[in-house]
Amino acid sequence: MKMKSSCAGRWLMISPKTQIHMLSCRSDSNLRIQNRVADRNSSVVRGRVLGQYVMNGGDGPNSYAQNSSYQCSSQMQRGVVDVAKPIIEAEISERLDVKHHSSTFRIADFGCSTGHNSFAAMKIITEAIKRKFETDRQTSDIPDFQVFFNDKAVNDFNTLFSSLPCKRLYYATGVPGSFHGRLLPKASLHFAYSSCTLNWLSEVPKEVADDTSPSWNRGKIHCFGARREVLKAYSNQYVKDVEAFLESRAEELVAGGLMALIVPAVPAFWNPNTAFTSITEFDILGSCLTDLAEKGRFSKAKVDSFNLPLHYTIPQEFEAILERSHNYTLERMEIIDNPGKRTLPAPKDRASFVRAVFEQLLTNHFGSEIIDELFHQYAKKMAASPLFLDPENEKTIMIFVLLKRKPYDQK
Amino acid sequence: MKMKSSCAGRWLMISPKTQIHMLSCRSDSNLRIQNRVADRNSSVVRGRVLGQYVMNGGDGPNSYAQNSSYQCSSQMQRGVVDVAKPIIEAEISERLDVKHHSSTFRIADFGCSTGHNSFAAMKIITEAIKRKFETDRQTSDIPDFQVFFNDKAVNDFNTLFSSLPCKRLYYATGVPGSFHGRLLPKASLHFAYSSCTLNWLSEVPKEVADDTSPSWNRGKIHCFGARREVLKAYSNQYVKDVEAFLESRAEELVAGGLMALIVPAVPAFWNPNTAFTSITEFDILGSCLTDLAEKGRFSKAKVDSFNLPLHYTIPQEFEAILERSHNYTLERMEIIDNPGKRTLPAPKDRASFVRAVFEQLLTNHFGSEIIDELFHQYAKKMAASPLFLDPENEKTIMIFVLLKRKPYDQK
Repeated sequence: MKMKSSCAGRWLMISPKTQIHMLSCRSDSNLRIQNRVADRNSSVVRGRVLGQYVMNGGDGPNSYAQNSSYQCSSQMQRGVVDVAKPIIEAEISERLDVKHHSSTFRIADFGCSTGHNSFAAMKIITEAIKRKFETDRQTSDIPDFQVFFNDKAVNDFNTLFSSLPCKRLYYATGVPGSFHGRLLPKASLHFAYSSCTLNWLSEVPKEVADDTSPSWNRGKIHCFGARREVLKAYSNQYVKDVEAFLESRAEELVAGGLMALIVPAVPAFWNPNTAFTSITEFDILGSCLTDLAEKGRFSKAKVDSFNLPLHYTIPQEFEAILERSHNYTLERMEIIDNPGKRTLPAPKDRASFVRAVFEQLLTNHFGSEIIDELFHQYAKKMAASPLFLDPENEKTIMIFVLLKRKPYDQK
Repeated sequence: MKMKSSCAGRWLMISPKTQIHMLSCRSDSNLRIQNRVADRNSSVVRGRVLGQYVMNGGDGPNSYAQNSSYQCSSQMQRGVVDVAKPIIEAEISERLDVKHHSSTFRIADFGCSTGHNSFAAMKIITEAIKRKFETDRQTSDIPDFQVFFNDKAVNDFNTLFSSLPCKRLYYATGVPGSFHGRLLPKASLHFAYSSCTLNWLSEVPKEVADDTSPSWNRGKIHCFGARREVLKAYSNQYVKDVEAFLESRAEELVAGGLMALIVPAVPAFWNPNTAFTSITEFDILGSCLTDLAEKGRFSKAKVDSFNLPLHYTIPQEFEAILERSHNYTLERMEIIDNPGKRTLPAPKDRASFVRAVFEQLLTNHFGSEIIDELFHQYAKKMAASPLFLDPENEKTIMIFVLLKRKPYDQK
């Protein structure tokens, strides 16, 4: 079957098995962990600035705060956390051990951005934990809750802090730094949460922007529809990053501590002639950039050297990563409902969301003067394709995972 | 003796004894604590936005970061923390109990602004604590350090987080909120620090801006040189605020936890004809505003309704507040050296510092268009007075205080 070049790709040809096999060949066993205590003798924490891409800050019309309810799904009105709410509540009720607890209960959200969705998640989680304490301990002696809102140091924490809900169950703190490294003291965290963040890579794999490499990603901005070598480079980076994330959290979590993850993904197989996912939309964005290059706004080489630091896993790939981690027990893993299928936003709103997410990255590379034209073009392309207008064709999925930190002496 | 009206005031006529007596008559025994857990049953933390004055953010020429080395003293090259360094090191070495310690050691700086001086203080403190662990425990088992950088939610935390030193001994977090209320979980903090912050009031005493009150502060912007009623209103507010600060920290500190405070103050007596302090400079600022009102830039009523939310204590007043607190033992209290006497900055630089501190407050009240003219005028007045040009005339002092949290069952 010949597919349209804008949507087709080897991505779709690889069986889950093949892919998992490929990803398990780790090219770098010496995982790089940023911001961790590098030298235990001197206890020096060494910082290292990674890619400086974050969502649009503030709360203006192009801000992530104003557009993020579309995050991970095609739904305008509710955040993805609402979908996970009953699952999170049930898991906390069933699996959280509150019997022998200290006076502070610490929760962290890794990749909180400016807080819009994070506040809703922290409300659900702290209320559920409070109920669990009330039920199991039959006492009013509930610990103080402390929530650590984490994102990169270049995130707009000023907007986050100014937007904190007045009525909340917790003491709020911000933690700047990459979640691919250590951010919190050893065994200090009781509940970790991260939603729609692990799809962000710590960096674009170097080889895809290297015109001497077989993995050079010429003419495209993502691995979707690209050559096998490009996909492999992206996948390797993803595995390395998720493993670094899991290893860092394993050091921060107390034994028995829980971690809830919501991971954007795509099915192992889907037909780009009849369906689309978030990564299809990256391809549209790439084609809009190519259009602008052809109009002379910038060179084609400029597009060649631009690549999105994103990877959408498939459930089989993600499960394989979890299975290789020896620090956790996998308590639950499932595909959660994508209500976006029923409430797909209009093309203009989808363009606004993509702009809020990628504007900083695009501006850094192409300059700010092309942004309006780019997203005008993007909305037009979305509106022109019948494929994108039918919610039933949206196949992006979300994986819910609940992990429990094993005792420290047990591997 | 007749004094110059720009410098004279009842402030100077009050004996320490009189003043302490006045301040001990607390008008409000039900201290208002912001951001604390208001309802233990529901554990709801209720936030309340206080006055929104903070230092200039960013790192431009008018930023606090670029001008703050002048903070609390008249010294351009070294921060006040350097003066306190040997005392802090000695106190940690002598009084910190590290025998039975948990795996995380938590330190907080209350009123960190954009971090310029805070990072230096946290370096000194964490290095001293690390040495203490190494010496007393004779083991490499040193806990992880976690530092909580606190300032109001409107503080520029983005600049703080982007400026964090790469090489540091601690995991960094930001805590937004007023330090006159609870900010951290109960008994979670091991070392508290606050430098040159308690002179900031939670709000201007309401009565000084009320033209029907006997405490109305007409024609002035501070209690210096104002009537006794105005001074009393400022002092009452100061006592209430410092007590709220101490009470909140007492809940956050572990038993045996230490708190180091550096408190800007003035001597009980000094002659404004031959000496000056920081509060004299506020009077200069007030006279510049009056000048601009006379030039028609704004009305005189605009000056009448503007008052600085600042109070400089005297050692006797501060000691009396500490003596009334039942949660701490006073381990050390002394006037520390003011090296500014030897290195008084040029009038233009002093104007830049005052601008970095007050620009937001002034802009909110008078508008941004008067700022350049105001500080040009300010520098001119400073330069014109021989009093301000001789470092020997600078009489602002700093009080160093070390407190230890008593056991929780001991009052």
